[in-house]
Amino acid sequence: MSENTPKQPQKPQGGKAPANAISPIRAHDFPEWYQAVITAADMAENSEVRGCMVIKPWGYGIWELMQAQLDKMFKATGHKNAYFPLFIPLSYLEKEATHVEGFAKECAVVTHHRLEAGPDGKLIPTGKLAEPLVVRPTSETIIGAAYAKWVQSYRDLPLLLNQWANVVRWEMRPRIFLRTTEFLWQEGHTAHETEEEAQQETRRMLDVYETFARDHLAIPVVSGRKSASERFPGAVDTLCIEAMVQDRKAVQAGTSHFLGQNFAKASGIKYLSREGQQEFAWTTSWGVSTRLIGTLIMAHADDDGLILPPRVAPTQVVIIPIIPKDEQRKEILRACGAIKEQIEAQQFHKEDIRVEVDQREVQGGTKTWEWIKKGVPLRVEIGPRDLESGTVFVGRRDKGPKEKQSYPKDDFAAQVPAILQSIQDGIYERALAFRREHTKVIESKEEFYAFFTPKNEEKPEIHGGFALAHWNGSAEVEAKIKEDLKVTIRCIPFEEMPQPGTCIFTGEKSAQRVIFAKSY
Amino acid sequence: MSENTPKQPQKPQGGKAPANAISPIRAHDFPEWYQAVITAADMAENSEVRGCMVIKPWGYGIWELMQAQLDKMFKATGHKNAYFPLFIPLSYLEKEATHVEGFAKECAVVTHHRLEAGPDGKLIPTGKLAEPLVVRPTSETIIGAAYAKWVQSYRDLPLLLNQWANVVRWEMRPRIFLRTTEFLWQEGHTAHETEEEAQQETRRMLDVYETFARDHLAIPVVSGRKSASERFPGAVDTLCIEAMVQDRKAVQAGTSHFLGQNFAKASGIKYLSREGQQEFAWTTSWGVSTRLIGTLIMAHADDDGLILPPRVAPTQVVIIPIIPKDEQRKEILRACGAIKEQIEAQQFHKEDIRVEVDQREVQGGTKTWEWIKKGVPLRVEIGPRDLESGTVFVGRRDKGPKEKQSYPKDDFAAQVPAILQSIQDGIYERALAFRREHTKVIESKEEFYAFFTPKNEEKPEIHGGFALAHWNGSAEVEAKIKEDLKVTIRCIPFEEMPQPGTCIFTGEKSAQRVIFAKSY
Repeated sequence: MSENTPKQPQKPQGGKAPANAISPIRAHDFPEWYQAVITAADMAENSEVRGCMVIKPWGYGIWELMQAQLDKMFKATGHKNAYFPLFIPLSYLEKEATHVEGFAKECAVVTHHRLEAGPDGKLIPTGKLAEPLVVRPTSETIIGAAYAKWVQSYRDLPLLLNQWANVVRWEMRPRIFLRTTEFLWQEGHTAHETEEEAQQETRRMLDVYETFARDHLAIPVVSGRKSASERFPGAVDTLCIEAMVQDRKAVQAGTSHFLGQNFAKASGIKYLSREGQQEFAWTTSWGVSTRLIGTLIMAHADDDGLILPPRVAPTQVVIIPIIPKDEQRKEILRACGAIKEQIEAQQFHKEDIRVEVDQREVQGGTKTWEWIKKGVPLRVEIGPRDLESGTVFVGRRDKGPKEKQSYPKDDFAAQVPAILQSIQDGIYERALAFRREHTKVIESKEEFYAFFTPKNEEKPEIHGGFALAHWNGSAEVEAKIKEDLKVTIRCIPFEEMPQPGTCIFTGEKSAQRVIFAKSY
Repeated sequence: MSENTPKQPQKPQGGKAPANAISPIRAHDFPEWYQAVITAADMAENSEVRGCMVIKPWGYGIWELMQAQLDKMFKATGHKNAYFPLFIPLSYLEKEATHVEGFAKECAVVTHHRLEAGPDGKLIPTGKLAEPLVVRPTSETIIGAAYAKWVQSYRDLPLLLNQWANVVRWEMRPRIFLRTTEFLWQEGHTAHETEEEAQQETRRMLDVYETFARDHLAIPVVSGRKSASERFPGAVDTLCIEAMVQDRKAVQAGTSHFLGQNFAKASGIKYLSREGQQEFAWTTSWGVSTRLIGTLIMAHADDDGLILPPRVAPTQVVIIPIIPKDEQRKEILRACGAIKEQIEAQQFHKEDIRVEVDQREVQGGTKTWEWIKKGVPLRVEIGPRDLESGTVFVGRRDKGPKEKQSYPKDDFAAQVPAILQSIQDGIYERALAFRREHTKVIESKEEFYAFFTPKNEEKPEIHGGFALAHWNGSAEVEAKIKEDLKVTIRCIPFEEMPQPGTCIFTGEKSAQRVIFAKSY
């Protein structure tokens, strides 16, 4: 896919360079802008191991907050955490034919279990394994093997487990956070007595993801069902949440799979039913990954860098002392410490507010720009003049970098929770408005092709959006559109009352409109 | 080592079987007892992938509590979390000669990145990698490569990071939790400007481990320094905490390594000093793993199963409804729910108390024994007679299974924090007394050999303990003792004023007594 080809940073086209912290800006080169935001915020970097990233403290701090919140939501819906082996015997993977077909081309394979010096003194792998082991690309088969042992009777069901883990899918075209050879994720795996229960679970966990995306990441997502060609390998049904990011492409931000009895049959997960019959269990799996961090960046960041919704900001408020003369240092730092304590006495969504005083001996303006690029929601500056006037100057990351508001010093802390909520809400509303602006109901094939064809030669990347169009359900139509435009069906959205219509590609009947988009 | 050979469960020797939940009991077959405790508590099991375990929810819940507490302590000492690649290029590992020598024999090696159907239709590894990748056995070299890029000047130091991760060391004689091919751990990696600072860090983190073992795991440990032959491959100095478990063997429960400039030189971690010179940084690394769970079991569990210190118990209080007649169900469950709420209104070490009502439709006695085997600190039974009399019956896991105490129902909740603390303290005191009982100051070689030679043919496994003896510092003496008795120097304990003496093996001078023991 051409959008994945690495590019050289482009110079802004014509005129003088804009006064932004990130170069190139979004409008000039979205993929390079994305990489530049990550570097400027010091979130992560590519390692020398192809496709594997190093997640630096700022990026990992965001992931820790995502994990903590999701983990609470999983536990509140009755799930417990467990841990299963990293290695999957090749024979396990082969048990489900569609599954292995889907993953075979991207498997890291362990074939040896030691190293020895070869004839030239260089180390070579020795101790060949009788059966190669695959580094898990996902864990349905290895967890299925355990469930087959654990489940005997309907009394053992439902089995509701989740695992936080690293997985490996060999990527030929890696892009940091969005598509990496190794990534971090959670994978829920559940087994149920009935088909209905398993389907309810599949939907319940998708709803958890939707809620999390909305309330924590400030990202509006569309929930729906994948078309058959986009399903998880081995699934009967794949549900997903799809986000629109600022180049109007879609990111699949989370999936929840109804696996039917496919994996239960492959792994032998059988139970004695209430009627005394041996039955296969019904299973599900669902996951989100560090890809959410990439989605967050592309959804909210601007030409000055990252913008973090307060609920996932490792630092929610940074206090920057402005110290023009060294003899003022002590007094100003004391004032900063006092405000920090006042803010920490407040809570935001029942959690302590995360405040930091940046005491480094670096010039104030440099510090301010660093925190802007890191996306910290609130910056509080305190200098000698503020001490005199009893005020503080406050910058919000969702406003322009020079837009600052003054607050009475002793009054400010109490307002912080409300300001953070207003930033959280504002970011969400902005993303929602953006998605609405670029979601179009499309009534003809011509209009569809025009929608997904760049109009501006200078900005070939940014065009299109979500197209809501009628489709006859045919995989061939899907394939043709993908070939012509690199556009796919992102989902068949859930609607209370789907409106039937006429497929814009074939004139045949359509049960409802589906969402087409280019995607990551 | 003979103690690692898998054994058949032994029948209790002579007489009738003891009325214990675990068989065999500790005195009859300690290794089999250990495995039986894990099975009875439903903590973990061996997977079909050799040496890799499945950590079940009860075992993983304990690990989550350990993680949460340690993570707080790491952050309180100025560390942040990050994440580095699972795969290490062979060439990285080769950079530090001692290091690669130490790990070469136990490395899982990835050699291919895809699978394809071979001539017989079976999948075979294809896509051979130009350079094999090792699944990290530890991350000094891959993290060193990143630090070399990040560290430019003394201003970038100290660099204080930690990673929670899985690692793989191919085990020929795996034992669940204690020695597994894949295990979970944390590894701290820090870089410093001066030797002194790095040494202080090494000791600071060992102290964190000692505090954690004492206050959370209720395990008294000896802190000290490893002899040269027991050092981490590539380290200048390895500090450790050593626990005594109930078969009187030692378990190395955590290590903290002063790496000098060895890895900085191997990876090129250089900085511009305050004096404007290029200098190599001084680095440390430190880690604890899921081995702590094995240590916890061996230190505290008894012949009825696991005993959990309250601070790491996933459930601290279980409420068991006793329902002789179905029409009483509603009222009894209501009373259980009310007590749960009362207890949850209390706190233990500033955290909400973890309470569960066991509502399963299983006979009360069966439930009680399940929770005993799981090691839950407090069991509260509520039946119709208790409702009438306004009391509850409470069993403490640190007392005998039949020893129960009655409390006025409305009075009990307020006492729970104090009872939990008394259990936490009692378990620690018991372990400390046990260690004292089996730690012996030894003055001659004959006494030493006698101490480590089984006296009782029926219980060959349980003998010896910690021997405090003078040693001349020679690696040959160490090797001879190891060969003769399978006894090693566990550590050279930190003491304020080491007392010099005479080596019991050679008659040469000794700077201080060291601790000898058999170990896991």
